[in-house]
Amino acid sequence: MTVKACVVGATGYAGAELVRLLVQHPQVELTAITSHSYVGQPLEQVYPNFAKRIPLICEEEAIEPLVEQADVLFFALPHGHVAQKIDADLLTRTRVVDLGADFRLQSADVYEHWYGLAHPKPELLAQAIYGLPEWCREQIKKARLIANPGCYPTCSALAIAPLLQKGWIDPNSIIIDAKSGVTGAGRALALGHHFSECNESIKAYGVASHRHTPEIEQTLGNIANMPVTLNFTPHLVPMNRGILATIYANLTDSVTEQEVRQAYEAAYHAEPFVRLLPPGMLPETRWIKGSNYCDIAFRLDERTRRIIVVAAIDNLVKGAAGQAIQNMNLMLDLEETAGLEAIPLFPV
Amino acid sequence: MTVKACVVGATGYAGAELVRLLVQHPQVELTAITSHSYVGQPLEQVYPNFAKRIPLICEEEAIEPLVEQADVLFFALPHGHVAQKIDADLLTRTRVVDLGADFRLQSADVYEHWYGLAHPKPELLAQAIYGLPEWCREQIKKARLIANPGCYPTCSALAIAPLLQKGWIDPNSIIIDAKSGVTGAGRALALGHHFSECNESIKAYGVASHRHTPEIEQTLGNIANMPVTLNFTPHLVPMNRGILATIYANLTDSVTEQEVRQAYEAAYHAEPFVRLLPPGMLPETRWIKGSNYCDIAFRLDERTRRIIVVAAIDNLVKGAAGQAIQNMNLMLDLEETAGLEAIPLFPV
Amino acid sequence: MTVKACVVGATGYAGAELVRLLVQHPQVELTAITSHSYVGQPLEQVYPNFAKRIPLICEEEAIEPLVEQADVLFFALPHGHVAQKIDADLLTRTRVVDLGADFRLQSADVYEHWYGLAHPKPELLAQAIYGLPEWCREQIKKARLIANPGCYPTCSALAIAPLLQKGWIDPNSIIIDAKSGVTGAGRALALGHHFSECNESIKAYGVASHRHTPEIEQTLGNIANMPVTLNFTPHLVPMNRGILATIYANLTDSVTEQEVRQAYEAAYHAEPFVRLLPPGMLPETRWIKGSNYCDIAFRLDERTRRIIVVAAIDNLVKGAAGQAIQNMNLMLDLEETAGLEAIPLFPV
Amino acid sequence: MTVKACVVGATGYAGAELVRLLVQHPQVELTAITSHSYVGQPLEQVYPNFAKRIPLICEEEAIEPLVEQADVLFFALPHGHVAQKIDADLLTRTRVVDLGADFRLQSADVYEHWYGLAHPKPELLAQAIYGLPEWCREQIKKARLIANPGCYPTCSALAIAPLLQKGWIDPNSIIIDAKSGVTGAGRALALGHHFSECNESIKAYGVASHRHTPEIEQTLGNIANMPVTLNFTPHLVPMNRGILATIYANLTDSVTEQEVRQAYEAAYHAEPFVRLLPPGMLPETRWIKGSNYCDIAFRLDERTRRIIVVAAIDNLVKGAAGQAIQNMNLMLDLEETAGLEAIPLFPV
Repeated sequence: MTVKACVVGATGYAGAELVRLLVQHPQVELTAITSHSYVGQPLEQVYPNFAKRIPLICEEEAIEPLVEQADVLFFALPHGHVAQKIDADLLTRTRVVDLGADFRLQSADVYEHWYGLAHPKPELLAQAIYGLPEWCREQIKKARLIANPGCYPTCSALAIAPLLQKGWIDPNSIIIDAKSGVTGAGRALALGHHFSECNESIKAYGVASHRHTPEIEQTLGNIANMPVTLNFTPHLVPMNRGILATIYANLTDSVTEQEVRQAYEAAYHAEPFVRLLPPGMLPETRWIKGSNYCDIAFRLDERTRRIIVVAAIDNLVKGAAGQAIQNMNLMLDLEETAGLEAIPLFPV
Repeated sequence: MTVKACVVGATGYAGAELVRLLVQHPQVELTAITSHSYVGQPLEQVYPNFAKRIPLICEEEAIEPLVEQADVLFFALPHGHVAQKIDADLLTRTRVVDLGADFRLQSADVYEHWYGLAHPKPELLAQAIYGLPEWCREQIKKARLIANPGCYPTCSALAIAPLLQKGWIDPNSIIIDAKSGVTGAGRALALGHHFSECNESIKAYGVASHRHTPEIEQTLGNIANMPVTLNFTPHLVPMNRGILATIYANLTDSVTEQEVRQAYEAAYHAEPFVRLLPPGMLPETRWIKGSNYCDIAFRLDERTRRIIVVAAIDNLVKGAAGQAIQNMNLMLDLEETAGLEAIPLFPV
Repeated sequence: MTVKACVVGATGYAGAELVRLLVQHPQVELTAITSHSYVGQPLEQVYPNFAKRIPLICEEEAIEPLVEQADVLFFALPHGHVAQKIDADLLTRTRVVDLGADFRLQSADVYEHWYGLAHPKPELLAQAIYGLPEWCREQIKKARLIANPGCYPTCSALAIAPLLQKGWIDPNSIIIDAKSGVTGAGRALALGHHFSECNESIKAYGVASHRHTPEIEQTLGNIANMPVTLNFTPHLVPMNRGILATIYANLTDSVTEQEVRQAYEAAYHAEPFVRLLPPGMLPETRWIKGSNYCDIAFRLDERTRRIIVVAAIDNLVKGAAGQAIQNMNLMLDLEETAGLEAIPLFPV
Repeated sequence: MTVKACVVGATGYAGAELVRLLVQHPQVELTAITSHSYVGQPLEQVYPNFAKRIPLICEEEAIEPLVEQADVLFFALPHGHVAQKIDADLLTRTRVVDLGADFRLQSADVYEHWYGLAHPKPELLAQAIYGLPEWCREQIKKARLIANPGCYPTCSALAIAPLLQKGWIDPNSIIIDAKSGVTGAGRALALGHHFSECNESIKAYGVASHRHTPEIEQTLGNIANMPVTLNFTPHLVPMNRGILATIYANLTDSVTEQEVRQAYEAAYHAEPFVRLLPPGMLPETRWIKGSNYCDIAFRLDERTRRIIVVAAIDNLVKGAAGQAIQNMNLMLDLEETAGLEAIPLFPV
């Protein structure tokens, strides 16, 4: 079985990574790609790594012509754009995976509050499924519209969901200190991402105000079955790829290290893309590059009765394009790991 | 007035930085340096950046011959070594600044617990002064033995001391998530610091077990005048220099942003090496490199009633050699900023 | 058809890359791996990127037990070791691909001169085939012992072989200025490859004395059918992967840019792993990472009547493990590109 | 004695480095700075490393108001701009150091050929002095208009000038393969200097067409007293600061290594900012960062009868701002090394 896919917004980093993975997917035919800035150009001029391998031309960002060529439409656009481009009718004719933020928040009010614009299609929100397969797999299989999770939310939620499910941590004590490589900021030019400005430096940004905060709270709240209010602080690290999240929470219970380990194993032992590290090891972004894996480890601190969980993903794969394909595989009843089997590349 | 100084352990990164700064100090004569690994070699062979400028030869690590040549002896050795090499008599004949950990903890028991060895000279602990000038200046002026603070403790303590002094945060709610460049790990070879292993990657290490934890707790506890128990997690970042600490604490009070700012200004406006950033800015390690500055900013999160404080230092300057010289200046009644006036270098 | 392979020396960077590629090769079963330093350990402890994917244990470096399990034995050991471990009898029972230098030079005298030791098995030299498929394909197909080319020689020879074949450049005017990422230096600890020593710095090394010099001269001499004496200068660049070679030569002829382009196209248009870039573009190592490609471009300088050729490869793939697999594919009559189809990863 | 200086174009990297050095110069008062993009803003907002230290405001780029405040006017603008802004009359009232390219080439025709525009003030060219102190010191002392050399030409010319002066190399055999950190490209945004595009990659650019080519040829030609035609290839290296030039030339004589060493020593032993490395060492950019030094070493290759010279500078100091100050010191009869004594910073 071969499925047809299109990528809208193929020339940003997430879009290009999606193209790279789709082209190598054994059951996918990538029928068209679009770009805002490079219409009419061969993709291999924009990304010369694709030379000799991906002979696609960047088309205009017109959606309707793509619908017939696509069992699934991927969107890798800035927030606000996708909700404008799709509607209920389109969703009857094709499936959509939105790598952006438009359908991640269930509440149009929360969206407006954090993103600063009225949601263009609130009526579609109820239909959107949050595409975190490890926690929403069955819904994803039946979805027509997937909100592909943000990079930070993916890493953060996978890291501590088992603890919230068990009710072992105080949902209002959670602090997420996350660190990302610079590809997370995209390919658009900005002084802060000019090589000599961010190389050899680290900074926090969006402190107490980053838009991934409500998304993480919503995901964890759904799993905890109670409201979660937390602190999330992203940092920019001088490297290309990778996210590391270090998460702190107060234990509410006299749970032991062994019990915690069992809970993680129960949650993830059957998961193809989550690796619970053995005792003594901690995740590092170098071990997951180019792959769809999320590596997780934890420490119990008896002195403070806190648990510290560390998790790592490749922000462009499990944090974007890889997870989008994992969602597609589930929706279209393909093997969940198809096209995502690459072993992490190291050193790279 | 010229003072004479010696550096014991001049060929590690902190020792070499000390040499570089002392040689350029207008009132210091650097009379001798020692090395464990490079005895008899010109320092400029070990550090060719010093060619044509520092014609010193690395001497053996024998202390007694140095005492007469030194108004102050700097030690930049691994923990355990300095306490073995000095005694009360030596301290009557010269002053000591120990850049290592031997005299930082007031309790020999706590030292033994965290460092895993019995303290070699517990009788000197009462005499040792913790060399954080912004909070211990008067004691430093009268000291004969300075325990130069660790890099992480310097950055962390400066960042939140004003809040603890005011009693505005819960002393048991503090979480310090710190990120350091690789020079913090020293010049000794280790697989984890091999270029291709740590480049393009970030990791946490020493989670819930790093030795700077009790040092931070002690310093903040002294300022708060009550015990402080906290979480401290260091991370290794692929860059040479710099530490960024992101610190979280629960506000215990209805304090406002303006009040917090005033408290920081009261604490630091007269400090030559602390820069409270204006509203809207956050510290980044790129702005303090090669300098003795500590940059600080904070955010109040009304949603969680937490404060997030971010601070940055150069780990080899304010976090080691620069602060050691600041302490020397105070002890010897020199201008506190002498030899430390370098404006941060950027981009570098 | 499935072939059985073993890797001797699987825990260096080239060996581990070989394992990663072989495990993903559709027609290979990797039956055993050995290690000098990690005998008895799971490979995924040494390389946690392999967790959940490669359940192999590092065996002792004993060759005889491997022969029966291997249609092909890969060796990724320091020079001098492989020639000691193999002999003519072994080559009747299995095939060997040596990623090291022992069989690259046809003359035992030249080997002794540049490597400083007498060749352990000069009698095997006549049997060894230099594994540069683009120029030695037919011999490789019939080989039992492949000398896999060095990383610099691969990049350099591919870059200018067409010019020497045509006789268009003076064979004694060639200057190769090459730049490599730090993985080229391997995983063994050395001060020069300690992160803080080589990060943010570039240096030349082995000037006029690097051991890849005679290998390049031999390869190009064979193609030119006359002796070639050249200058080769490698440089260490602060990045993980990639080699860029910039090569200068005096034109001996009034050849035009168009003729040169035609010569390159004739040489390489059918090659699966060489990409001649279109006019206006130049190779950059970012475009070939994780792949077996060699990207090439040239400029004619009318002012000096020199040609400048620039080429880029991934030193661990086309410069080591990927080319080794390409050679195996040829020897065993598999599809030449099998297991080497990965599209270059970017940004990484 | 205190001299007054102004910087026109203070917010580019070279301009800001000039400000940093001038502010710390013991005999300079920096009376005004201008900026194209940040008029009216405090410099410390544009460069927060200057906070608490440099309270200057960026003024408009109007020259006339500056003349009275300046014994010397520094220009750090793109080429074409300075020649428009100055004239003979202005040069009677102040001195000018142009860090740009407008007055480096003695011939307006050559300028037009390489820079693609007619020289705005050809009548000033005869008056301009090329500011390479090691080779033009006496002229610089009497100059009113200094053409501060380019970064690549400084490094390249210092490296091989002694050989050309002696007539020991073929002036038409010279090949300069140079590698620069990304600050050399300035602070203006460009996709090629976006972090994730140039990090972890190396490329050549401007092959056979870079504008520093005629500048190097002119400088070396003047020293050789005959025309020099050479190849110059710059490369972009993923690091902030530093240039390394590797230079190849055919020896025309039976000169020995000892004779060459003596020639370099004769040329440079009295130079405060040139360090000829001892035998066995080679320059690396890590040893000269933040300093005005140029490190040089050479190798004779008996096999090819070529000499290979390697040199390193900090592109923003000896390659721009530091050399500009060295020129100012000479023009104004200050100590040549004043304000330039900083020992190189390492690791940084």
